[in-house]
Amino acid sequence: MQFRLIHEDISTKARAGIISSPHGRFETPVFIPVGTQGTVKALSSEELKEIGVGVVLCNTYHLYLRPGHVLIQKMGGLHRFMSWEGSLLTDSGGYQIFSISNLQKSQPEGIEFKSHIDGSQHFLTPEDVLKIQASLGSDLRMVLDECTSYPVSHRQAEDSLKRTLDWARRSKRARPKQGGILAIVQGSTFKNLRKRAAQEVVDMDFDGYALGGLSVGEPIPLRWEIVDLTNDILPPDKPRYLMGVGTPQELLEGISLGVDMFDCALPTRIARNGSIFTSEGRLNLRSAQYKEDSGPLDPDCICQACQNYSRSYIRHLVWAREILGMRLTSYHNLYFLARLMEKARRAIRRDKFRQFKGEFLGGYGKIRE
Amino acid sequence: MQFRLIHEDISTKARAGIISSPHGRFETPVFIPVGTQGTVKALSSEELKEIGVGVVLCNTYHLYLRPGHVLIQKMGGLHRFMSWEGSLLTDSGGYQIFSISNLQKSQPEGIEFKSHIDGSQHFLTPEDVLKIQASLGSDLRMVLDECTSYPVSHRQAEDSLKRTLDWARRSKRARPKQGGILAIVQGSTFKNLRKRAAQEVVDMDFDGYALGGLSVGEPIPLRWEIVDLTNDILPPDKPRYLMGVGTPQELLEGISLGVDMFDCALPTRIARNGSIFTSEGRLNLRSAQYKEDSGPLDPDCICQACQNYSRSYIRHLVWAREILGMRLTSYHNLYFLARLMEKARRAIRRDKFRQFKGEFLGGYGKIRE
Repeated sequence: MQFRLIHEDISTKARAGIISSPHGRFETPVFIPVGTQGTVKALSSEELKEIGVGVVLCNTYHLYLRPGHVLIQKMGGLHRFMSWEGSLLTDSGGYQIFSISNLQKSQPEGIEFKSHIDGSQHFLTPEDVLKIQASLGSDLRMVLDECTSYPVSHRQAEDSLKRTLDWARRSKRARPKQGGILAIVQGSTFKNLRKRAAQEVVDMDFDGYALGGLSVGEPIPLRWEIVDLTNDILPPDKPRYLMGVGTPQELLEGISLGVDMFDCALPTRIARNGSIFTSEGRLNLRSAQYKEDSGPLDPDCICQACQNYSRSYIRHLVWAREILGMRLTSYHNLYFLARLMEKARRAIRRDKFRQFKGEFLGGYGKIRE
Repeated sequence: MQFRLIHEDISTKARAGIISSPHGRFETPVFIPVGTQGTVKALSSEELKEIGVGVVLCNTYHLYLRPGHVLIQKMGGLHRFMSWEGSLLTDSGGYQIFSISNLQKSQPEGIEFKSHIDGSQHFLTPEDVLKIQASLGSDLRMVLDECTSYPVSHRQAEDSLKRTLDWARRSKRARPKQGGILAIVQGSTFKNLRKRAAQEVVDMDFDGYALGGLSVGEPIPLRWEIVDLTNDILPPDKPRYLMGVGTPQELLEGISLGVDMFDCALPTRIARNGSIFTSEGRLNLRSAQYKEDSGPLDPDCICQACQNYSRSYIRHLVWAREILGMRLTSYHNLYFLARLMEKARRAIRRDKFRQFKGEFLGGYGKIRE
């Protein structure tokens, strides 16, 4: 995995770059759709390609539990298993172990937890999760970390960070020959901890750096302060990845502070509930006002869903709980974000990101869901 | 709507024909996928076209209740609403009223029932259901009938048939200028009633004739006896439609007795549960034996699902309850039936239907789910 910085915007900290992996190149800033169980919910690999997606995130925790990384490796690796020719990013599973599984104990050596599927007992070390990701054959891999919830005390955050940094050090030593590995900066909302964390992982020299433990309930302005001060420490020649962030406004804010990669399940999750992104803001099709709306989901969009189906019809599908409704809204939301990021990259290369962001947000504010 | 008989098989009663509607032509025998709520579950209109589907059935009962035929008419009719350019068949709603709704009372004038969605009270006459179907703008429409359950006494069947025939007569009088109308032959499993019913609706002269009240639990051999004796009475120049029938074996049996049209929700319903048609028989992907099966759903199939995805992957999707799993199995099952019917039509035109049926059933028996 390689990152090439192409251009830095003149009036913001936004950057345009290119990431190359054994499975192709994709431009940054990039929004990475989430395919938790080896499938971006409701969509096919062919549709993701059609949308222009270059990289998909899959959750190591889920795939490790079901169908199992050994099975996936036998089937030729995750790319082949899910018929996805583009790049794949896998997370470490840490976040899911802390949030979904029945966590037993985080120990210096690793994490003990129970499966949310069948209650079976598991123990994973930082070295294990890298091996699992290697079995999956993903192009970009994440180190195991402890993700603090919000709020925590300074003492708790510091103790947790110590373990995260220790695990990062072990991950660096265990590093297999192939696949890019990204470390994760933690430290909750404590600026001194975040600075220390950033400096320490940079000193360890990874292929990229993620900002973890954000978007977990902290005040929004504080989040962006943390992102800003962390990015100032991270080296310009490595990609920066803000985990779990995903509304159009947040993406543009993160980009303006120098973030290169984002992932989030929100765009497809809200889609399945009837919520869609439009050039005028987010709206929910369930509302009675779209009952007889024969127009497309977004008048400014030319995606397959917008070309062929009306708000009225998709609203009916959403109310009737029909799968096609979830397909069309998911397709549209990812298409919307792919185009948004495309426009953002173009604006950066032309040193017009600030203007672009202002114009987009001006339009996007017209509707309030 | 027009039916043209092209060829009658030499050694069976199978027929090949063409039905023309304002929305194109499709060849018979034909299997008609069911799109209950204005969508064939899990699939898009573009995919149906890709599969080679020429006609889709939608349920009047469901669309009348939600989103309502008036809304659909306002949106330009059902074709436009669901973005479907092919032909559309709508049923009368009778079967659903008797099976899904909270039936209140079937009266000489019409049927009183409560919505299964919100419990609201409704009353529909034979004339109403034709008007509703006209609002939807379907190409082939069905008259309202009483569908007897199995078993019923001869007396009950006779009383019910009397009402069905009376409603058919009223439907004939109420017939709007556009759209083909098919009457339904009832009479439970009583041969004398079936014969009388067939003769009476033929005398009323409809655009086609359906065999209703079968596939409701009666003994299989008896069902085919009824189909055979009914078809012998129905005129050769009108299409014959066996309602609710849909496994590969049943389709071939029906075809051999001169049936031209079939519809059934089974192929897509079992698909959503992981059951697929293959050239060797029906199998359920949930079974452990397909866990590491890297082959396609059906080795003899070239559909998109079989070209791009393995049994192992789709099995994982089915177990993980992922939408893509239901999409791929539904796509495959309809593709399988479309090809089966294509081959059946070719065999009929070459006077080789008996041989084709024997060969297919020989292969199809290899696997037993």
